[in-house]
Amino acid sequence: MTELSRSEDKRLVLAAGRAHPELATEIAEELGTELLPMSAYDFANGEIYVRSGESVRGKDVFVIQSHPAPLNNHLMEQLIMIDSMKRASARRITVVSPFYPYARQDKKGRGREPISARLVADLYQAAGASRVMSVDLHTAQIQGFFDGPVDHLFAIPLLADYIRTRLEGEEVTVVSPDTGRVRVAEQWADRLGGVPLAFVHKSRDLTVPNQAESKTVVGDIEGRVCVLIDDMIDTGGTIAGAVRVLKEAGAKDVIIAATHAVFSDPAAQRLGECGAREVVVTNTLPIPEEKRFQNLTVLSIAPLIARAIREVFEDGSVTSLFDGDA
Amino acid sequence: MTELSRSEDKRLVLAAGRAHPELATEIAEELGTELLPMSAYDFANGEIYVRSGESVRGKDVFVIQSHPAPLNNHLMEQLIMIDSMKRASARRITVVSPFYPYARQDKKGRGREPISARLVADLYQAAGASRVMSVDLHTAQIQGFFDGPVDHLFAIPLLADYIRTRLEGEEVTVVSPDTGRVRVAEQWADRLGGVPLAFVHKSRDLTVPNQAESKTVVGDIEGRVCVLIDDMIDTGGTIAGAVRVLKEAGAKDVIIAATHAVFSDPAAQRLGECGAREVVVTNTLPIPEEKRFQNLTVLSIAPLIARAIREVFEDGSVTSLFDGDA
Amino acid sequence: MTELSRSEDKRLVLAAGRAHPELATEIAEELGTELLPMSAYDFANGEIYVRSGESVRGKDVFVIQSHPAPLNNHLMEQLIMIDSMKRASARRITVVSPFYPYARQDKKGRGREPISARLVADLYQAAGASRVMSVDLHTAQIQGFFDGPVDHLFAIPLLADYIRTRLEGEEVTVVSPDTGRVRVAEQWADRLGGVPLAFVHKSRDLTVPNQAESKTVVGDIEGRVCVLIDDMIDTGGTIAGAVRVLKEAGAKDVIIAATHAVFSDPAAQRLGECGAREVVVTNTLPIPEEKRFQNLTVLSIAPLIARAIREVFEDGSVTSLFDGDA
Amino acid sequence: MTELSRSEDKRLVLAAGRAHPELATEIAEELGTELLPMSAYDFANGEIYVRSGESVRGKDVFVIQSHPAPLNNHLMEQLIMIDSMKRASARRITVVSPFYPYARQDKKGRGREPISARLVADLYQAAGASRVMSVDLHTAQIQGFFDGPVDHLFAIPLLADYIRTRLEGEEVTVVSPDTGRVRVAEQWADRLGGVPLAFVHKSRDLTVPNQAESKTVVGDIEGRVCVLIDDMIDTGGTIAGAVRVLKEAGAKDVIIAATHAVFSDPAAQRLGECGAREVVVTNTLPIPEEKRFQNLTVLSIAPLIARAIREVFEDGSVTSLFDGDA
Amino acid sequence: MTELSRSEDKRLVLAAGRAHPELATEIAEELGTELLPMSAYDFANGEIYVRSGESVRGKDVFVIQSHPAPLNNHLMEQLIMIDSMKRASARRITVVSPFYPYARQDKKGRGREPISARLVADLYQAAGASRVMSVDLHTAQIQGFFDGPVDHLFAIPLLADYIRTRLEGEEVTVVSPDTGRVRVAEQWADRLGGVPLAFVHKSRDLTVPNQAESKTVVGDIEGRVCVLIDDMIDTGGTIAGAVRVLKEAGAKDVIIAATHAVFSDPAAQRLGECGAREVVVTNTLPIPEEKRFQNLTVLSIAPLIARAIREVFEDGSVTSLFDGDA
Amino acid sequence: MTELSRSEDKRLVLAAGRAHPELATEIAEELGTELLPMSAYDFANGEIYVRSGESVRGKDVFVIQSHPAPLNNHLMEQLIMIDSMKRASARRITVVSPFYPYARQDKKGRGREPISARLVADLYQAAGASRVMSVDLHTAQIQGFFDGPVDHLFAIPLLADYIRTRLEGEEVTVVSPDTGRVRVAEQWADRLGGVPLAFVHKSRDLTVPNQAESKTVVGDIEGRVCVLIDDMIDTGGTIAGAVRVLKEAGAKDVIIAATHAVFSDPAAQRLGECGAREVVVTNTLPIPEEKRFQNLTVLSIAPLIARAIREVFEDGSVTSLFDGDA
Repeated sequence: MTELSRSEDKRLVLAAGRAHPELATEIAEELGTELLPMSAYDFANGEIYVRSGESVRGKDVFVIQSHPAPLNNHLMEQLIMIDSMKRASARRITVVSPFYPYARQDKKGRGREPISARLVADLYQAAGASRVMSVDLHTAQIQGFFDGPVDHLFAIPLLADYIRTRLEGEEVTVVSPDTGRVRVAEQWADRLGGVPLAFVHKSRDLTVPNQAESKTVVGDIEGRVCVLIDDMIDTGGTIAGAVRVLKEAGAKDVIIAATHAVFSDPAAQRLGECGAREVVVTNTLPIPEEKRFQNLTVLSIAPLIARAIREVFEDGSVTSLFDGDA
Repeated sequence: MTELSRSEDKRLVLAAGRAHPELATEIAEELGTELLPMSAYDFANGEIYVRSGESVRGKDVFVIQSHPAPLNNHLMEQLIMIDSMKRASARRITVVSPFYPYARQDKKGRGREPISARLVADLYQAAGASRVMSVDLHTAQIQGFFDGPVDHLFAIPLLADYIRTRLEGEEVTVVSPDTGRVRVAEQWADRLGGVPLAFVHKSRDLTVPNQAESKTVVGDIEGRVCVLIDDMIDTGGTIAGAVRVLKEAGAKDVIIAATHAVFSDPAAQRLGECGAREVVVTNTLPIPEEKRFQNLTVLSIAPLIARAIREVFEDGSVTSLFDGDA
Repeated sequence: MTELSRSEDKRLVLAAGRAHPELATEIAEELGTELLPMSAYDFANGEIYVRSGESVRGKDVFVIQSHPAPLNNHLMEQLIMIDSMKRASARRITVVSPFYPYARQDKKGRGREPISARLVADLYQAAGASRVMSVDLHTAQIQGFFDGPVDHLFAIPLLADYIRTRLEGEEVTVVSPDTGRVRVAEQWADRLGGVPLAFVHKSRDLTVPNQAESKTVVGDIEGRVCVLIDDMIDTGGTIAGAVRVLKEAGAKDVIIAATHAVFSDPAAQRLGECGAREVVVTNTLPIPEEKRFQNLTVLSIAPLIARAIREVFEDGSVTSLFDGDA
Repeated sequence: MTELSRSEDKRLVLAAGRAHPELATEIAEELGTELLPMSAYDFANGEIYVRSGESVRGKDVFVIQSHPAPLNNHLMEQLIMIDSMKRASARRITVVSPFYPYARQDKKGRGREPISARLVADLYQAAGASRVMSVDLHTAQIQGFFDGPVDHLFAIPLLADYIRTRLEGEEVTVVSPDTGRVRVAEQWADRLGGVPLAFVHKSRDLTVPNQAESKTVVGDIEGRVCVLIDDMIDTGGTIAGAVRVLKEAGAKDVIIAATHAVFSDPAAQRLGECGAREVVVTNTLPIPEEKRFQNLTVLSIAPLIARAIREVFEDGSVTSLFDGDA
Repeated sequence: MTELSRSEDKRLVLAAGRAHPELATEIAEELGTELLPMSAYDFANGEIYVRSGESVRGKDVFVIQSHPAPLNNHLMEQLIMIDSMKRASARRITVVSPFYPYARQDKKGRGREPISARLVADLYQAAGASRVMSVDLHTAQIQGFFDGPVDHLFAIPLLADYIRTRLEGEEVTVVSPDTGRVRVAEQWADRLGGVPLAFVHKSRDLTVPNQAESKTVVGDIEGRVCVLIDDMIDTGGTIAGAVRVLKEAGAKDVIIAATHAVFSDPAAQRLGECGAREVVVTNTLPIPEEKRFQNLTVLSIAPLIARAIREVFEDGSVTSLFDGDA
Repeated sequence: MTELSRSEDKRLVLAAGRAHPELATEIAEELGTELLPMSAYDFANGEIYVRSGESVRGKDVFVIQSHPAPLNNHLMEQLIMIDSMKRASARRITVVSPFYPYARQDKKGRGREPISARLVADLYQAAGASRVMSVDLHTAQIQGFFDGPVDHLFAIPLLADYIRTRLEGEEVTVVSPDTGRVRVAEQWADRLGGVPLAFVHKSRDLTVPNQAESKTVVGDIEGRVCVLIDDMIDTGGTIAGAVRVLKEAGAKDVIIAATHAVFSDPAAQRLGECGAREVVVTNTLPIPEEKRFQNLTVLSIAPLIARAIREVFEDGSVTSLFDGDA
């Protein structure tokens, strides 16, 4: 007899960074398990130390991290966690980054710019990740930056289903705050029942030097409730400006919907005062109490992520979570 | 004395596949050189053989290939050329693919789809390419699919400068044929002097089964000359349909502008009969006589590519070729 | 409790390209399963689209493709299938290419030639394949081109066992059509009972310019039945010429045996008219009706491939399928 | 004529991150050049944007960054700079990190720990660096973490030559603050003229639970001036403790020497009050005014780095900068 | 039904090179299994041939090799074994090298030196290994040379537990033979009950040319039993010299302990005659009869390695084997 | 001014291992230079140490090594040399291995065999080589094992030109000692003026168990001078056996020609006594005095290698050295 044999089980563990423990805990609860106990602390000069409190040998590890500010710290923590799991013989390591870091830097808009979203994919791979899971990537092409499976989850159904309940009997137009989100606005319009589309056009005349930009609304919004959508709200300047333009152009009301509530200052103030009827976001990023304002609605992304993790672990079809006409 | 020394020169050679010899020759003429002599033929079963007729040792090789149908043949020829250059000790190999193959498959729209545009980048790299040059990528994010420098050239200035000469005194609106090109239409609008934007909206109601799509124009086009733009025209169905919708919505006239004239059947017929005043394209792809129709204008992309190759070779700044507000 | 666990099963799926559906179906039947439902079609400009109709998450996927003309299309389709399986989280991807593409370009015969057979191995790997299965490689060294397991199946036993039944009581010589196949002819001679060997010698005098080649038979064939062997028959020129040389040199009769029936025009006509008693091949490549001629015998390779796939899936020993004195 | 040719020049550019502009400027001055103009700023959520103000095509780029707190920010900035240089066609990219980040995490002291110093090497490589230059690595083995040339510069000669001028006529012992630095202390002892060695021993009895550690000095220090050396001083706890132990054990006086002045709080206070005659460090890390105390001497590392960069650029021998008995 | 399924078992096999069959057999016995039957022989010119006598498809293969002289032969044999296992479809390949080859060349002490220990890690990876197991690496940083899990086993507890039984009632000091091992000596001192530390200092005066080195003992050893420790004993020169220095400095007695008994000539003679009371080593390397001398004690490392292999195979925690305060 | 610039020179250095210093020196003399001074020695346990005595920064390094027994030592020395050159910032590293190690193990003849020739290519690459140069590879396909340029030099012209001078007025047949070399024999036959071909056939009957092999000559050799060719002669058993068979079959005389004189015992004796008129080889491997016998002619390969190195360095065409009908 020249071999030993034993039956094989798959075992899933969830490891979470320190950026957004509430979300990670909620995901674990949805899955009926607990987070891996981790030691994690910062050295005085900012270096991060992490170590799992239990063996991860042969396990299917999901390394969950959120990426609010200070984003680079959270990213490095996640990379170090991946490295430690790889060296501790994890069988497979899946990055779970609900808000993909540096997603906005997804192309060279000008020469000599970095493509930091691709860099992040390469860093994940260099550290030892073999899969990535994320929600509502800034552009879907980011999936192609990683050389392996990317589970791209969509929060639009979650957000749209909620918002539909708030729009009974209203005349609705979906509005993109700029020309880059019109395609996504179209997906919203279809989900909300084939309603009209509009967008804010920031026009410039390149043939005349130093000409000021002017903003106009293209599409039919007069007397209608506008659902102003975006993938993320950072400082809120663009979106609050769009509310103003829409109101001036005769919109009856505005509801703002976005997946990622980055909410850098002064976003909370701007959104609270911009005149929108409601601002609806998810908790892919933590939203501290001081950034919560009246009319803000936060939907939990945890059930969606938990279901996706379960499907990945059980080799089921994540497709069912984001398919449709996407 | 334990070393031999000699001064070093950089030497550029242009190698061209068989898909579009006119373009390659024109590029060589612009640069004041000739194409590398190549043996290239097909075996009876479709296998391709290529071999350079001259040494490429230590040279800076640009492997130019166009990608009309049968596209896979041209792509494999280019990969085999790259392999042969690598094994023949070329110093650096730059892929020059004016029309990037499989650019439309740049994301997983649904689960289990390939990301063929990333695959193509990986195939170029596996064969031995260290740089890529292309014109008007379907989405700019494709730059991030390649792990190395990508020189992304823009044909919009070339096309827009020509079209501006055809629009003296007209009221102009730039129109995107669908929601995915509105950002690019905005770049056109800025170049044409801050003119208005519009797009064709193909709306569906996902909440009602089997509902037909309907097409409407969003934006102001009535009585105006529409510049209908796209990155490529394949069978021409979408673009001809957009002309019809625009005319029905009251457009005074339509000029079509696109970089890549794929012109699969029955594009020539459709475009010739669609009622557009003029169709303006470039020669990134060969356009055989039988696909040329009245009102078709073909601008040469060769000067742009030649300038970019020269800049790359001389370590100048390609940025000047595509920068601005890009 | 910080982990979830479930028992693990291995699951095999067969995905087939569009080049030779009969062979793939036959393999599936031999295995007692069905082919994965696939959407696959060509865009008008030749770009290929593929998508699996079912989840392949965690599965052991065998991507079966044949490579007749137009070979590059079939190869790209296979690469795109591999990419889609990789991104859809297949656990392991095995390329099954009964006729290895570009196998004849396995070395630099002259400077600046590509080594396309190595390139193909690199393309498979870049796309995401971790294993390769093939039948009767042009040279066995191609196994070393792939950085991973290669299951190299041998059709010689299949062919030889059949031919032996046709040679009862005959004086037999195994003949190689050129000097490059004498080693393989020797394997045949051993399998047919230690019979004599011969080959056709195409001699040139390099010391005299422009001297014509002459062909002679080296070895004892007079009055004997010649089994003329090769790995593939492309246009049939070499093999038909060899039949003529053998007949002129006094061979009693000739039986042709080859694994891969490439049969590029005018192979069917040449073989049908060359005077051979029988031509025996396998169906690693599809042979359409119009290329089938009298005296052609086609043996099915499906049982051999099916057995190998089963062994690979069950971690059995494929060695038993091709070992012996190989 | 099938090629263009031009003579080739090597061109060096220095690009600096924002962590320690004084050092970078000083290096540039030593080399007689200026820093590459860079745009660099932080998005509100902490994401970093960088872009070179000039072309770096074909250039030999040195990406200088210091790594004080917040270290992860500075590291990500450096990685993004490397990515942007790679995509902008830099010919060669050398990381210049005078204080190598995460150098202390250079091994798995316990199971499941990361090896973050190796991770950092992998991140540099994934971003596109082909060479690394650093000063006084925490352990010399870190050189082996990077798959390429590492120029490891030594500050000991700089520090030792200065300290020797302060010790005329004194009886000197070199002291390591723990058992891990005795080898380095030996190099110091040799440089200071073959003086005696000592170290602080923190002993524990693993066979008795919960036993307290005790610190003793091993070696001859009574009545002598101790040169207490280390590679870095972080919070200063260990080193200040060692001064106390040495004093208690009869040392006449203590001079502290270290290359990297991390100086996390409360290092400045501890060092200023610990009773050492002088604290000598270099400026591999910025030392803000509020962390400078009496008796602190800061030697500039810029001349050493500048000389090394020049040697690398001119293909001279960096060895001469750090060889000897190293 | 489009898939076949079967339950999955993990199966472990042990494959051993020819360097130290006794150790491999002992490990197999500890595990309750047998070694994989291997054909292995040398061609006349030194080329090595290996082939497994049984299928390793899908198995968890541990490739055990020792590395005594002629070390390069044993290393190449191991690399060829790994290559053969990879090509034979082993599921995972773990290198078991109790004595890591070239561990002493773990840094560039001077410019232009190789880092052969990193090279060895790269060779293992290039051949196809995905994990490494070793005992008492020369420096722990070598773990970071391999891009994957490294199980670093510690023999100190084995050696220390034995030696403690030999020291009842004695006054003990742990001694490092040079400044590079003081950290390891400290681990010993803790394990032996918090005993004192000492080391041998080889001092030079770099400021005076050609000055002779002198050796002194730093630390308290007079009248005490010295436990002189090292990771390996090669020719025994350093260690025998240290015994002499210790005796001259008043040591009562010396016990030598080392993990790796390289024992190149004339180690056996030197150790036998050096005056040490006992020399304790393990059998990570074979010790032929003619190199065994009186007072030599050889402890078997097989139980430790067998336990670690079992833990790795069963995804248990190897940490428990080497943790503690390491 | 933000950059420094200097003109660039290419500088070639030759570094030689210790296996065959005469050949390396002769190559250096042909090139008009000297070998790089190297420190190289063996540790007592067989570990090798190498270090260049001069800087190789930015240089074009050719690492020359021969591979006689003990072959694994010479291979490891070469790998360590490559590693040291890579880490010392060599600009490009070319492996020069006149006799490619493990060339005979170029395929899996049976399941579970390694493909050691591919492994060697991978080891060269892992160590840092970017190019390979070799003479008369056992099979030309080995070129495809390395992912980069391989300069494959041919010694046949050198050998054939010499032998032609020895065959004035003779009736000549070129003979392959087995079925695997007939293709190469054909190249010889063409070079010698279109002379006849023959080979030795070792026939077995696989259908009858335990049947003895018998050797026969296929082809016309009676009364003719046979030029018996091979790529290498190891123990000489096959070749001496072939001489006997040829003589028995009526050959007038036999001249043996082979590129690589491995000459493992008892090759010298066998060849000296086998009855061949002359044995002609090259010095790709060292042939010590005691292995030289009467009738042995050794031609120097140094001029061919030197010319190839010069062409590679000067980016000339190595093709001219081996082209023709190769």
